Amino acid sequence: MTQVRTDLAVEAHEIAKSAGNLSGVESTEETTGHVKLTRVKVLDERGEQAIGKPVGTYVTVEVPGLDDTEGETFLEAVETVGKELAAMLQEMRGEVLVAGLGNAEMTPDAIGPRSVQNVLVTRHVAGELSQISGMEGTRGVAAIAPGVLGQTGVEAGEILKALVMKIRPVAVIAVDALASRRAARLGNTIQIADTGIIPGSGVGNARFAVNKDSLGVPVIALGIPTVVDAATLAVDLIEDAGFHADEGAREKIRRSACPNDTPMFVTPRFIDLIVEHAARLTGFAINRALNPSIAYDDMVAMLA
Amino acid sequence: MTQVRTDLAVEAHEIAKSAGNLSGVESTEETTGHVKLTRVKVLDERGEQAIGKPVGTYVTVEVPGLDDTEGETFLEAVETVGKELAAMLQEMRGEVLVAGLGNAEMTPDAIGPRSVQNVLVTRHVAGELSQISGMEGTRGVAAIAPGVLGQTGVEAGEILKALVMKIRPVAVIAVDALASRRAARLGNTIQIADTGIIPGSGVGNARFAVNKDSLGVPVIALGIPTVVDAATLAVDLIEDAGFHADEGAREKIRRSACPNDTPMFVTPRFIDLIVEHAARLTGFAINRALNPSIAYDDMVAMLA
Amino acid sequence: MTQVRTDLAVEAHEIAKSAGNLSGVESTEETTGHVKLTRVKVLDERGEQAIGKPVGTYVTVEVPGLDDTEGETFLEAVETVGKELAAMLQEMRGEVLVAGLGNAEMTPDAIGPRSVQNVLVTRHVAGELSQISGMEGTRGVAAIAPGVLGQTGVEAGEILKALVMKIRPVAVIAVDALASRRAARLGNTIQIADTGIIPGSGVGNARFAVNKDSLGVPVIALGIPTVVDAATLAVDLIEDAGFHADEGAREKIRRSACPNDTPMFVTPRFIDLIVEHAARLTGFAINRALNPSIAYDDMVAMLA
Amino acid sequence: MTQVRTDLAVEAHEIAKSAGNLSGVESTEETTGHVKLTRVKVLDERGEQAIGKPVGTYVTVEVPGLDDTEGETFLEAVETVGKELAAMLQEMRGEVLVAGLGNAEMTPDAIGPRSVQNVLVTRHVAGELSQISGMEGTRGVAAIAPGVLGQTGVEAGEILKALVMKIRPVAVIAVDALASRRAARLGNTIQIADTGIIPGSGVGNARFAVNKDSLGVPVIALGIPTVVDAATLAVDLIEDAGFHADEGAREKIRRSACPNDTPMFVTPRFIDLIVEHAARLTGFAINRALNPSIAYDDMVAMLA
Repeated sequence: MTQVRTDLAVEAHEIAKSAGNLSGVESTEETTGHVKLTRVKVLDERGEQAIGKPVGTYVTVEVPGLDDTEGETFLEAVETVGKELAAMLQEMRGEVLVAGLGNAEMTPDAIGPRSVQNVLVTRHVAGELSQISGMEGTRGVAAIAPGVLGQTGVEAGEILKALVMKIRPVAVIAVDALASRRAARLGNTIQIADTGIIPGSGVGNARFAVNKDSLGVPVIALGIPTVVDAATLAVDLIEDAGFHADEGAREKIRRSACPNDTPMFVTPRFIDLIVEHAARLTGFAINRALNPSIAYDDMVAMLA
Repeated sequence: MTQVRTDLAVEAHEIAKSAGNLSGVESTEETTGHVKLTRVKVLDERGEQAIGKPVGTYVTVEVPGLDDTEGETFLEAVETVGKELAAMLQEMRGEVLVAGLGNAEMTPDAIGPRSVQNVLVTRHVAGELSQISGMEGTRGVAAIAPGVLGQTGVEAGEILKALVMKIRPVAVIAVDALASRRAARLGNTIQIADTGIIPGSGVGNARFAVNKDSLGVPVIALGIPTVVDAATLAVDLIEDAGFHADEGAREKIRRSACPNDTPMFVTPRFIDLIVEHAARLTGFAINRALNPSIAYDDMVAMLA
Repeated sequence: MTQVRTDLAVEAHEIAKSAGNLSGVESTEETTGHVKLTRVKVLDERGEQAIGKPVGTYVTVEVPGLDDTEGETFLEAVETVGKELAAMLQEMRGEVLVAGLGNAEMTPDAIGPRSVQNVLVTRHVAGELSQISGMEGTRGVAAIAPGVLGQTGVEAGEILKALVMKIRPVAVIAVDALASRRAARLGNTIQIADTGIIPGSGVGNARFAVNKDSLGVPVIALGIPTVVDAATLAVDLIEDAGFHADEGAREKIRRSACPNDTPMFVTPRFIDLIVEHAARLTGFAINRALNPSIAYDDMVAMLA
Repeated sequence: MTQVRTDLAVEAHEIAKSAGNLSGVESTEETTGHVKLTRVKVLDERGEQAIGKPVGTYVTVEVPGLDDTEGETFLEAVETVGKELAAMLQEMRGEVLVAGLGNAEMTPDAIGPRSVQNVLVTRHVAGELSQISGMEGTRGVAAIAPGVLGQTGVEAGEILKALVMKIRPVAVIAVDALASRRAARLGNTIQIADTGIIPGSGVGNARFAVNKDSLGVPVIALGIPTVVDAATLAVDLIEDAGFHADEGAREKIRRSACPNDTPMFVTPRFIDLIVEHAARLTGFAINRALNPSIAYDDMVAMLA
């Protein structure tokens, strides 16, 4: 079967469902306020086969729009993502390393590095913060944007592995931009997975994994889709318009969207705004998960 | 007929041609080195009807790729665009105002403002430069990035009109990002037109014109496509794949690509690089056209 | 007398006072909360002679530090500056143009352009905003960062004059970076003056004025010092240390601080932070003055 | 003795010389073209005492001004610094790690991170480049900007140590902004030292060392002064003006320049330009030293 390019388990699940194969996969949905939450669990090898993702839990948070970063919807999204992150970290006490994957100089790929700028870094001051009233038990947080291979000559995963061996966090939270199959999801879907991440996997560029196997500590992946491949976009628009594209047709369209065998990924015209808002959402949610004793307003003030 | 969204006369011409209606339009092509040049002339009202662009000359320069800004192809492109610009300015002596249209904070829209940073501004020092050996007869060049309505509260065209009335240039060169119907053109096609420009027209957002009628002096438009509308992209991919989409089908696809009646425009994942290179190309070509007595290397040094 | 380079009336007043000449000048001080307010009025020609500033009112707001942009001190500063601005605009109803003077690419000079990014621009939507509940009577606000002569080839004042003639605001608020004589003031002093401004005057670079005479409408100047000239800094440090520098000594020091006859201006190592905070303060205060019916939180959300 | 804050051995040498104590220190000067070269060798413990720098070789390259990055002086500076770097690396073959120390978001501190953007990173493609004609024997180069403690929660030196243990380079080149005692040196002096570096040492902020002891491989430090402490500036201006400041006076001035016991560092108004030029110079010189077989023009094109 021709693969639809997506990094979202919720989309892979949708595709597998339409193909009638969901063995080894569980899924539930709930909606609270403006936020829709879907949990997809890949239980075993059959599930891995069915949806093409490793065993683990994938939580998808969908919000109707992140038009500003001050409104009620934004706060709901921050709290929901924070809660899910916290749930995945439940039993792990101790320092956490936040890794902002991607290329800061390429806007659609910059969510990771920019998220890090919204993370409260406390590892070097956790003791002092804990002494200050109201910040009892501050968790140590380190954060790094390791860059991409073309910038550093070193795989992001290798840099992270080196750093993990040095500072020994209990877990890594890795933030990355994802590819979605649906343009409508760009910028308003957040995926939280306890499986780690393979940087660039969504854009046909698989690399050194960032997961428990490679780093030696649990890796929670936090991803937001910012690109969609043009062929998938075309096929979806055709089908949304009520036409049917069979496998042969899809394959032809896919080829016509791959000049020089490189799939063409596109991103919305408003990508700068999308990235800014998503990075703020991601960073804030991480802070809520890691140091909930720091009040929301104090967090905002500390980052200003 | 459902309109295909394009700001490029060469594409409008292609569409009209396939519809068999080219009355009032002339077109020639030539290729030199790596550069392909197409001249489309809209001669009269019939031509305006046929291709939906005002009477005037539209020169399109296509280069195979602008992967770097130092190589031979880049230089060829600079010289070709510069020569065409100079030809359109032929009889006009005196100061020129360069206007970088668009929103500097939205990457796909930032070509105009960033081009201005590559323009040699000489209006305030033209006299002194003329006295320095080798720069005899330096032309005065002013440059402004007037911003967009949402940033300033004033139409870019109004700001330009005010400035034109104040400094009285012989012509305006207006640089803007365009919409193309073909993703393959993004970042490697430059259109030079003696008709001026309507900012935002390519993205369904028509505004105060920037042309001779509105400003009172000739306006040469220099545009580079950076976005493509998703529906057109889908239809083209379908047809590239060998299928036929009739008018009804196209219309349905178009509607499915317009959530909330807003057409969705997309841009390549590498848009930051495209904009950087295009802005350098555009700025350099303007310098070559306006002050050819300043040697290429000196120009580069003066801008460093 | 060797001139001490300062753009602050409060410093010029201090100097004149120590020289025993304060005819034609009135001055009052008050402190509320964390904020110290000094009003210097230059009443007539004698006052102009005494402190070297044109007739008018200069209000200086001093805050102990602008370490973050969320705390109580920041809010006090915003409200105080907003109230003083509003007082100067008291009788003027109608549209206002905000002008962010200076060079956005030179950090210590970028307060003006960055302030504009924190201004709520409403001129193009004032009617619609007024209809929305709670925003009755929204004032039209336009905003522009005209750049500097070296970037545009046109004096900022000329661009503003052209624009004023076009859109006919009732007043202009001009924001600019200033030179102070005391490093301790950098980034935490704001001067509000009803006299307009001469861009670059503080750094020995006088230009086309931006005042009522040149623009034809009242100009309120809002300035924040970001640079100090090295000679003045040296003399002040000497005197703070308890030594006396007579006029001859000062002159010698001044010359030693002017390699190639260009006075050397310096700025603190943390200038990026200072500029970011000052631009936010300035923009917010302007919003409070021009559209007080928009609640603080709504303003923050609209700018996010 | 009150310490004069300087990171430059050439200045420490000057001070020691005026104090008549140069035991254990050797120094030579030469001038070629526009470039002045001073070599200071600290031979032993007496030398360390005399000038307050560890045993090693400190080469200082002074150029009259780095006003542009295309002119002859710039090229001379690149080649000179490149040659000196190459000399220090002479016997070391194999991969090199370039570390851009400092805070990218604080302009005067950003030379390190921005230098890295001008470094040709080849570690991941060295094999392929070697096969392409003319690039025989390309040396593998990795590059990282590890950020500062406040951004990451981890000392830059710790991140580097982790990475060095992982990728095992033969040497590290560490680029950093320095403090000078003379404003006139800012931006046009480059120090190359085989001793490594202690980040922040010049600004009274000593940290985890980046040297052979801490990293386990030789560290060549490449530094450019961008800040000067205000007290030293004042004392120098006084003495340049022909006055004498004895130790007591200096101490008083120093105290008056340390509000809240934090020494005040200042930087020139044109710091953005200085940093841009210095980062280009440093990056280019590193490329010339590490991969001299890549022609200058090809290097510029590869970085465009």
